[in-house]
Amino acid sequence: MTDPRSVLIVGAGLSGCLLAVYLARRGHRVRVYERRGDPRVAGYVGGRSINLALSARGLWGLAGVGLDRVVMEREAIAMPGRMLHDRSGRTGFQPYSSRPGDAINAVSRGGLNLTLLREAAAEKGVEFFFNHWCTDVVLEEPAAWFNSPDQRDIRVDADIILGADGAFSPVRGRLQKVDRFDFSQSYLRHGYKELVIPALPGGGFAMERNALHIWPRGGTMMIALPNRDGTFTCTLFWPFEGEHSFSALPPGPGVRPFFDREYPDASALMPTLDEDYERNQVGSLVTVRCWPWQHNGTVAVLGDAAHAIVPFYGQGMNCAFEDVRVLADLLDEHKGDFGAALPAFQDARKANADAIADMALENFVEMRDLSGRSEFQYGKRIEQLLHRAVGDGVTPRYNLVSFSTVPYSSAQRRGREMERVIEAVSRRVPAPAAYDEAWEQAVLEAAGPLLTSITPLEGGA
Amino acid sequence: MTDPRSVLIVGAGLSGCLLAVYLARRGHRVRVYERRGDPRVAGYVGGRSINLALSARGLWGLAGVGLDRVVMEREAIAMPGRMLHDRSGRTGFQPYSSRPGDAINAVSRGGLNLTLLREAAAEKGVEFFFNHWCTDVVLEEPAAWFNSPDQRDIRVDADIILGADGAFSPVRGRLQKVDRFDFSQSYLRHGYKELVIPALPGGGFAMERNALHIWPRGGTMMIALPNRDGTFTCTLFWPFEGEHSFSALPPGPGVRPFFDREYPDASALMPTLDEDYERNQVGSLVTVRCWPWQHNGTVAVLGDAAHAIVPFYGQGMNCAFEDVRVLADLLDEHKGDFGAALPAFQDARKANADAIADMALENFVEMRDLSGRSEFQYGKRIEQLLHRAVGDGVTPRYNLVSFSTVPYSSAQRRGREMERVIEAVSRRVPAPAAYDEAWEQAVLEAAGPLLTSITPLEGGA
Repeated sequence: MTDPRSVLIVGAGLSGCLLAVYLARRGHRVRVYERRGDPRVAGYVGGRSINLALSARGLWGLAGVGLDRVVMEREAIAMPGRMLHDRSGRTGFQPYSSRPGDAINAVSRGGLNLTLLREAAAEKGVEFFFNHWCTDVVLEEPAAWFNSPDQRDIRVDADIILGADGAFSPVRGRLQKVDRFDFSQSYLRHGYKELVIPALPGGGFAMERNALHIWPRGGTMMIALPNRDGTFTCTLFWPFEGEHSFSALPPGPGVRPFFDREYPDASALMPTLDEDYERNQVGSLVTVRCWPWQHNGTVAVLGDAAHAIVPFYGQGMNCAFEDVRVLADLLDEHKGDFGAALPAFQDARKANADAIADMALENFVEMRDLSGRSEFQYGKRIEQLLHRAVGDGVTPRYNLVSFSTVPYSSAQRRGREMERVIEAVSRRVPAPAAYDEAWEQAVLEAAGPLLTSITPLEGGA
Repeated sequence: MTDPRSVLIVGAGLSGCLLAVYLARRGHRVRVYERRGDPRVAGYVGGRSINLALSARGLWGLAGVGLDRVVMEREAIAMPGRMLHDRSGRTGFQPYSSRPGDAINAVSRGGLNLTLLREAAAEKGVEFFFNHWCTDVVLEEPAAWFNSPDQRDIRVDADIILGADGAFSPVRGRLQKVDRFDFSQSYLRHGYKELVIPALPGGGFAMERNALHIWPRGGTMMIALPNRDGTFTCTLFWPFEGEHSFSALPPGPGVRPFFDREYPDASALMPTLDEDYERNQVGSLVTVRCWPWQHNGTVAVLGDAAHAIVPFYGQGMNCAFEDVRVLADLLDEHKGDFGAALPAFQDARKANADAIADMALENFVEMRDLSGRSEFQYGKRIEQLLHRAVGDGVTPRYNLVSFSTVPYSSAQRRGREMERVIEAVSRRVPAPAAYDEAWEQAVLEAAGPLLTSITPLEGGA
């Protein structure tokens, strides 16, 4: 089999479009089939959240085809830290990093998808087919069946079929029927609902623009990310059942008083709260794991289709874009041989996908619960002092995940090691009245001998 | 809704047939649809292993409709312990219990299935439909679609649909598409292949009849269960890949020398080894977990469809029969109201199904690896002495699982507690040259204070 070959991509979402750009530039004929309508015609109809946090791995994925700068310029709002909101409306800012310039970036899912789709469509050899629902994959050909807009069943043959078709991937659904395919889908008992804080009458932001806002409330939280038009998209993460849950607060007259009590400063900025709360659906939050990700070197899944994760580390899209570039790099390394590159791809990515899935689940606890607690905040303070004083050898987990492309599994191991050090230091050096040089000295002295337990990372950072 | 109602059972395997008997006796109209042919006509074509170990829970399930005695008389061969075979052909017997009469029972899957099918078919109001493949379930009706023997798609409406349709259950497949359905299927890297040891020319058994035979070889093993006709069904449990694996030993001239070396005493009793090894497929071993098991009080799964487990505790069928009787008892308790009984059923069984799934995975390690080691055998010795001397308060885990109907989750907890006690005792009292009264005294003295840590079980045993 010779390169260039025809590749069929299922899914014209974020990773499907980026993948199309990479493969077109490698000289492949690329056809992309998408079950939704063409967003260039009908406007974007998103399946999931309205905005996302783009960070180092996503930018690295975009940079491989020179798209990082245009996306940052057109779409992004830097969020260098968390703004915490307590029940009395008081706020406090926690920077994500002690390194200047480190920030995650709020981007609009719809805007970014449109940018990537237009870039892909402008490449030679790329064709898009919208309103085509993938109903089956014939693995041994390979070929895929689609239900077309006029309700016909059509079969599309290709040399390679790649499923970038999301958490409920039909391509993965077919792989699941192969003997010895490991698969799990696991739901949180929390769901999410989006709300909106509009722009100020003059067009400005009603809260700090450059922050990811969090209202941590123990077992639940609300967050808000800024949009370029001056609005914020708020997201509630509440249990479906029980106290402080979606079923405990049906739409109606109880909503406003509840928000006034739980999120008073936000409630004051939400004129359409009642309508939004009633109209917007409660979404569910799933973690999907599976293995293998490819079959015979000709059919594979990537992104959410291979490893859907919960959104609490802001890494779903970032991990998917990293997937795309890793796959493209492996195709280069294997001179276009998908039969070698697809097995190498799954081997390279599986442990990392599992690691970020775990960390995303853990980070929900951190965001909704720990981030509002003084012990947690003191630990963060120690972590950042050590990072500033000692340097890259003790880069914290959050920074490795969000501001580097160190493998997720290495970041996870580092996180466990640093957690033990910070816990020991905070036992020996209690939180001071003032964070002065004497405190810094005491922390560094206490930490010194413990830091020898930290495993250096391959590739630095 | 009033009782009696029409119940559609998908699957005429072991649990589907037993369930049909229970429901018919409760006055329901019962239709059972099965994708395979009628074994009364065509002979039994099994999906899985040829014989099985029937123990207390399975017998309890059968006893609820008076079928335990007939099955024991027609089908069973008692296996009161394990016969271990080493590489030199030496054997050693380990009784499962210090209580006389405790035994698991080898039964033929095909024979038992036929017995249950005939019992069900003899009940008033029960109808069987073979060669019908379930293709979909309409949850909200409920109704099920089947592909009939003449290739038509037929729809069957019922008040209640119960999926007793096995590890790859179509009914569960439909539930899996409901939002927030947790599901996992996880395969062992080991597969299984069946072989045969024929009866002696005169008709007798070529090895000890009343034992479950094991050839533990570290990471792998072979086992053998007796059949009523004097044969033994042997099962290899080997990895698919790697050393001592199915792919390392393809059918051909290497097979006999390998068996002569690894299983010399068995090899001498296997005249058709080469043909059996070549003809019989390698099966895979899956653990399936899911939640919820029911929808709206009208559609539910049970047995393997709800919780497929690996065979190493011999509990797949036993757990399924226990399911059936628990469900029937809950229907009695709720006066035939499935809307109350099905949620109560899943709540009662889920933790127990998870516990036996875990224990079955652990027991593979015990059987293939630990059972041949002297430390393990010494631990078993201590465990059985304590059981004999102290009584039901320290019934070992194996006994609780196999010789009682104490909830699996309680047996699992007891196992963990006893493991700690036995480990401590074996550290303090080393294995003696002779197992005399002095040794027994020393063990009981060492164990005495530790036994206060054992949690009593609800309901005795």
